[in-house]
Amino acid sequence: MTPLIEYDQASPEVRAVYDDIMATRQTDYINNMWKALANHPPSLQRTWARVKEIMGGPGTIDPLVREMIYIAVSVANNCDYCIHSHTASAFAKGMTKEQYAELLAVVGMAFETNALSTAFKVPIDPQFLVQTENKPKEDKP
Amino acid sequence: MTPLIEYDQASPEVRAVYDDIMATRQTDYINNMWKALANHPPSLQRTWARVKEIMGGPGTIDPLVREMIYIAVSVANNCDYCIHSHTASAFAKGMTKEQYAELLAVVGMAFETNALSTAFKVPIDPQFLVQTENKPKEDKP
Amino acid sequence: MTPLIEYDQASPEVRAVYDDIMATRQTDYINNMWKALANHPPSLQRTWARVKEIMGGPGTIDPLVREMIYIAVSVANNCDYCIHSHTASAFAKGMTKEQYAELLAVVGMAFETNALSTAFKVPIDPQFLVQTENKPKEDKP
Amino acid sequence: MTPLIEYDQASPEVRAVYDDIMATRQTDYINNMWKALANHPPSLQRTWARVKEIMGGPGTIDPLVREMIYIAVSVANNCDYCIHSHTASAFAKGMTKEQYAELLAVVGMAFETNALSTAFKVPIDPQFLVQTENKPKEDKP
Amino acid sequence: MTPLIEYDQASPEVRAVYDDIMATRQTDYINNMWKALANHPPSLQRTWARVKEIMGGPGTIDPLVREMIYIAVSVANNCDYCIHSHTASAFAKGMTKEQYAELLAVVGMAFETNALSTAFKVPIDPQFLVQTENKPKEDKP
Amino acid sequence: MTPLIEYDQASPEVRAVYDDIMATRQTDYINNMWKALANHPPSLQRTWARVKEIMGGPGTIDPLVREMIYIAVSVANNCDYCIHSHTASAFAKGMTKEQYAELLAVVGMAFETNALSTAFKVPIDPQFLVQTENKPKEDKP
Repeated sequence: MTPLIEYDQASPEVRAVYDDIMATRQTDYINNMWKALANHPPSLQRTWARVKEIMGGPGTIDPLVREMIYIAVSVANNCDYCIHSHTASAFAKGMTKEQYAELLAVVGMAFETNALSTAFKVPIDPQFLVQTENKPKEDKP
Repeated sequence: MTPLIEYDQASPEVRAVYDDIMATRQTDYINNMWKALANHPPSLQRTWARVKEIMGGPGTIDPLVREMIYIAVSVANNCDYCIHSHTASAFAKGMTKEQYAELLAVVGMAFETNALSTAFKVPIDPQFLVQTENKPKEDKP
Repeated sequence: MTPLIEYDQASPEVRAVYDDIMATRQTDYINNMWKALANHPPSLQRTWARVKEIMGGPGTIDPLVREMIYIAVSVANNCDYCIHSHTASAFAKGMTKEQYAELLAVVGMAFETNALSTAFKVPIDPQFLVQTENKPKEDKP
Repeated sequence: MTPLIEYDQASPEVRAVYDDIMATRQTDYINNMWKALANHPPSLQRTWARVKEIMGGPGTIDPLVREMIYIAVSVANNCDYCIHSHTASAFAKGMTKEQYAELLAVVGMAFETNALSTAFKVPIDPQFLVQTENKPKEDKP
Repeated sequence: MTPLIEYDQASPEVRAVYDDIMATRQTDYINNMWKALANHPPSLQRTWARVKEIMGGPGTIDPLVREMIYIAVSVANNCDYCIHSHTASAFAKGMTKEQYAELLAVVGMAFETNALSTAFKVPIDPQFLVQTENKPKEDKP
Repeated sequence: MTPLIEYDQASPEVRAVYDDIMATRQTDYINNMWKALANHPPSLQRTWARVKEIMGGPGTIDPLVREMIYIAVSVANNCDYCIHSHTASAFAKGMTKEQYAELLAVVGMAFETNALSTAFKVPIDPQFLVQTENKPKEDKP
């Protein structure tokens, strides 16, 4: 229902985001999610900036693992577009068919045990409530 | 609401599962989820067998990554017990505070973009629909 | 956070609903859900009228089965209050511990297979799409 | 899968609801949701009566705002039909493209922060638990 | 996106499951869910074994009721494939159009009251928290 | 489980965000969500910047309406903390008890009709799929 904004009909501010997406991903293809978001440039800019930083920026979690986590959430939220696009991304980043099958096995099992403990209203074990100690953060000598 | 079955009040078949949980995890502690499931021994046996295999068995996804995926699903399904127990497991398996923060950043961003593409009804790009080629599986010469 | 309206502080219109709940359920107890809804009498009246009709009225599905279906939905929607109140209702209506365990086994398995087919985007088999034939309804000769 | 009941094949009781929908909305079009509900006249009557009252009846929330709230819930519940039909209704009631973009920005952000506070298990601040004072309601001098 | 494994291209271990599905259901048709799961034989075997036991095995809940519970969960989880396949199964097992309408009336009402009590944060009534008494289980004299 | 970072133990970068929250909201109170996010300063900064802009920045949707939309999503995602904090915010911004009751009536009804149309798989009416026309955006003469 939301129209898709193609590059040639896009405003300069939208084109700037499209150019950054293509440069960052080293591709000349802009997928539909961005063309839909382009109907509201501030949302396009805000969303791309976060996706670029969180999914592709430096960090301690491997980018393929980030995709697997993204797929797990998208399955749980039942986002058709997201499942398709990020499963494709994960395979593009080297996910094997075996890893994909194991990812879904974990997701499926988590769904089942989520349902069971929600139904049973299992009381949380005290040790799971213990906080990791929290020390004041110093950022100077 | 569901009563918790302690070891000393458990039937031999339930004790056998408790013994395997303790041996497998090298602990003498049985967490409440199992004590709740023990009200129905077949469910306890079936669930433990799958958790043992899928979360702890051999595979191509690192056990800590499996925990991160499990946490992501549990947050999306809002399973209080599961979030607590598996966040504790992930920290026990070496997840750093930085990795935990990055995990939640991916989960939070996935939630947001899941909502946006669901609302926009973004059409799926054709290349995301292409099947990975499927060849007949042979398991003999 | 929502205040609970007790009988003695309730308006006549709210008391009329409370009286009908107690008469219908042959009890002198009003559970908290109704006391919360009583903050908005039209919502109280509308909700009680539907609950009374759908859960307790005449029909072709056994009242205990209706409770089991209600529990299944409440687990999936993670409604803490609803899970507690309707699990109690189901036991009050004769649900056995074995039936409860089997109910949760079906719910847990449905969760898992829901996740798997959502992730796989399994194409729907043509015969599942066939409509049950639809004939004009006549209610006179 | 559910057959759609067209006006000319509908029973008098169903036609009466269709007539009221068309009169209320000043249109000669009945959308598919009603034609599906018409397979069970009591459900059709019950549902239409509530939609007519809650979405279109007198109240202190502007009808366009009610549609925005409805869209927010439908996105969260991932109801494809509901998102399409109520987004169309909202635009028909005057929602601008800017308002639509802002609505989705709020929905997307709520999704993200919902996930974060669910994952963190943030303790509820005491002042958020304080009840609005609850005085006995009097409806006579 | 996931390829479907047809019988003639399946490995012996997959064919063994297909053969058991056809024998158990007395049909020569394998629906797509299994053909998708067949991409990972261990998942196919594990899932079929549980579905066969939980949905079709001996138990105290009528198989048609199990299907109704399955449909309720699938609607709540919004699993398109599952809703279609199990609604078809329920009708095949004798669900009448009236029972189907009543099933959906319970599901719809549960959704509404789930939302209301979640929003109100209704405190759980003490008697709903009382545990069914839990006696040690003995399985020998 | 996540420790809360108090102002006096916070790093300068965290204090800068706390100061902006207090200045923006004209309060000397920092609610727990921010103290939890403060464990990861980049997440705290990113989240506050967006909340400040989307919930409190200039726009065409009234700030109270934004809170109502936020509550609707939080109920659907079952975020306990979010429901409490934003219901409090909405009352602080002038929501009346009548508006609150009407908000929940819309949310509850949306939940019910979401479930019904998801279960029925109601086909989307063609006119709901029509795109609002999409003209090239010009931002220069």
